[in-house]
Amino acid sequence: MALIVQKFGGTSVGSVEKIKNVANRVIEEAEKGNEVVVVVSAMGKTTDQLVSMARDISGSPSKREMDMLLTTGEQVTISLLTMALIEEGHEAISYTGWQAGMQTESVHGNARILNIDATRIQAQLQEKKIVVVAGFQGHDANGEITTLGRGGSDTTAVAIAAALNADRCDIYTDVTGVFTTDPRYIKGARKLQSISYDEMLELANLGAGVLHPRAVEYAKNYQIPLEVRSSMERESGTIIEEEATMEENLIVRGIAFEDSITRVTIYGLPQSLGALSTIFTTLAKNRINVDIIIQSMTAEDTTNLSFSTKSEDTEAALIVLENNKQQLGFDRVETESGLAKVSIVGSGMVSNPGVAAEMFEVMANTGIQVKMVSTSEIKVSTVVNEKEMVKAVESLHEAFKLGQHANVLA
Amino acid sequence: MALIVQKFGGTSVGSVEKIKNVANRVIEEAEKGNEVVVVVSAMGKTTDQLVSMARDISGSPSKREMDMLLTTGEQVTISLLTMALIEEGHEAISYTGWQAGMQTESVHGNARILNIDATRIQAQLQEKKIVVVAGFQGHDANGEITTLGRGGSDTTAVAIAAALNADRCDIYTDVTGVFTTDPRYIKGARKLQSISYDEMLELANLGAGVLHPRAVEYAKNYQIPLEVRSSMERESGTIIEEEATMEENLIVRGIAFEDSITRVTIYGLPQSLGALSTIFTTLAKNRINVDIIIQSMTAEDTTNLSFSTKSEDTEAALIVLENNKQQLGFDRVETESGLAKVSIVGSGMVSNPGVAAEMFEVMANTGIQVKMVSTSEIKVSTVVNEKEMVKAVESLHEAFKLGQHANVLA
Repeated sequence: MALIVQKFGGTSVGSVEKIKNVANRVIEEAEKGNEVVVVVSAMGKTTDQLVSMARDISGSPSKREMDMLLTTGEQVTISLLTMALIEEGHEAISYTGWQAGMQTESVHGNARILNIDATRIQAQLQEKKIVVVAGFQGHDANGEITTLGRGGSDTTAVAIAAALNADRCDIYTDVTGVFTTDPRYIKGARKLQSISYDEMLELANLGAGVLHPRAVEYAKNYQIPLEVRSSMERESGTIIEEEATMEENLIVRGIAFEDSITRVTIYGLPQSLGALSTIFTTLAKNRINVDIIIQSMTAEDTTNLSFSTKSEDTEAALIVLENNKQQLGFDRVETESGLAKVSIVGSGMVSNPGVAAEMFEVMANTGIQVKMVSTSEIKVSTVVNEKEMVKAVESLHEAFKLGQHANVLA
Repeated sequence: MALIVQKFGGTSVGSVEKIKNVANRVIEEAEKGNEVVVVVSAMGKTTDQLVSMARDISGSPSKREMDMLLTTGEQVTISLLTMALIEEGHEAISYTGWQAGMQTESVHGNARILNIDATRIQAQLQEKKIVVVAGFQGHDANGEITTLGRGGSDTTAVAIAAALNADRCDIYTDVTGVFTTDPRYIKGARKLQSISYDEMLELANLGAGVLHPRAVEYAKNYQIPLEVRSSMERESGTIIEEEATMEENLIVRGIAFEDSITRVTIYGLPQSLGALSTIFTTLAKNRINVDIIIQSMTAEDTTNLSFSTKSEDTEAALIVLENNKQQLGFDRVETESGLAKVSIVGSGMVSNPGVAAEMFEVMANTGIQVKMVSTSEIKVSTVVNEKEMVKAVESLHEAFKLGQHANVLA
């Protein structure tokens, strides 16, 4: 007998019919003799509808009241799913975040989990009940309702799995697993059997939205094996686990990509110790996410500085820079839009120094100009023209033989 | 400065626009310098939609899970209304039932309030905040979410008013007050300035659905003055208070009526001490509501027994009787459908013994046959043909001069 936490996202519980389907998946696991805790999100478009009502009332609704509003979404799902389980003859009980003992910081909209008091869940499991828990939500020490922010339900599932010392946490979603690259765009993309936490973290951060990075980090910290799999298909998914336990160690595990990137270049920035810090602190304060940063020296006492950002954030970034021009002391700003980011990720890179070079060579041979580069121990990111994005990914996917199970290290 | 509890029902908060309108009504009261607690129901059709989803999953959904499901409705309203109040520059905070300290029995679907711990509400009032509380819901001693059943939000409002020792509890609804009879059917129906708790209880029980009897009882027990008024119109409503404090004491305060009544007659019931008890216990166990009961002796050792019931319950009642025919030992059952109940209510009746006689005379003069009669200290109910219902009410309304402020006692 194993203890398994299952998580079903908004698409998987998007209608009454789909909730019944989820109930069957849950029952399958329970009928194997396993203890099952199920974490669910709000149904499909529910959150969007609630947000839209709030926006009709206020341009900047109170964050506390937004939490009060949005947490109803998961509460509807847990009750309906529990009814469906009971209807199929299984004992089941639903818990909201506060009932499940999800204690968080006193922060609204983006709280971190502080502690899980799993007493109630454990008591129900001992009574042979399936326990259905509302994802995304918790409560603070004062009994205020809080939410975990983006990727919240994934995080709830992993955190409960950690608190219960679960054998496995299965993340059911609308894809069948984690792929070498996005199969919607790249023919030959292959589903991975397994991937390490660190690789998944890089891929999650790079926008391959199967799993929220926060949940992956949590799973890594508590060494909870995750499986990403489809709520509709029966095939096995992708296991996310510690690298050491994996069967194959790949140089390049996957390729992530993202369009609508703009490069912002600041010319004539005075060379002072605080200049960089001032610029990026100012941008961060204004909630502008900056990705790759490149600084280049010039002959004079000034530097040029480039950074990439989502195109939708560019206008706000320019306004912030312009408003602070005096203080920052730069000369002028230029932007180049219509760019894309293409990144290769693989834990084998650490011990294979030539991987970045190989990537650039593939790009050069394909006639693609690399405009920016950023590297980490297990990742190389490049910025290219948006029009060449898919071609770049295809070339890299082929060059690193990702479609073929073939770049296994000795 | 007064402490006022305001309650707005589902129709009053049926859309974002209506919620904004409610916010204005709340703010008006707050800007008079009053402390305000607002109790709200779920938005318009929300509860129906949630019930329908549950029914799609299960014919008899778990009551615990129904409570979990339905309580999301008020939670949506409290957050949106609070956002609207904040948007208008007022400090406000929302509380679910459990946050507001509404402790109930451990019963799902129809729990009674055991205790209200108003600490949190009081603390927020002291901080000059408007407190918005979810009606209809509470929690038991184990932290389970419960609901109060029909009329729950009215009861929540009155109970909070009692716990806070409020000066007034205003029930905002889609009518402008309590009328002498239903103005949708009877021309000349007049809005009452005031009515006693007891009269209101009889009228509420008789199906004049402005206010749930349970809330009226609660208000009577704690001597909380209620005002029923419109959430859209500005005019003053109807005050419900103790009879002693009222300006005018009427013989007949109002006329209630209800169609779709069926009379069930059981012939040849053996005269035993336990027969009546057995019959009505059996019907009650099967959740069949019986209203007027009449027993008539016959020459032999048997009696005939008639009772009235809602027509929709008749078939179920007949099945129950047939299934228990052996045990009950009666001869046969006959039914007469297409009937209606017409009742006059007034606390002045207690000291005016001729009122029932006057009612029967009016009916006779109008050519209406009275088929059943039932009386209480402040009420006379009759059963008549459905087709003659409106004519009966009109005649009585005129005879007792209800449209004219004229039947005031000396």
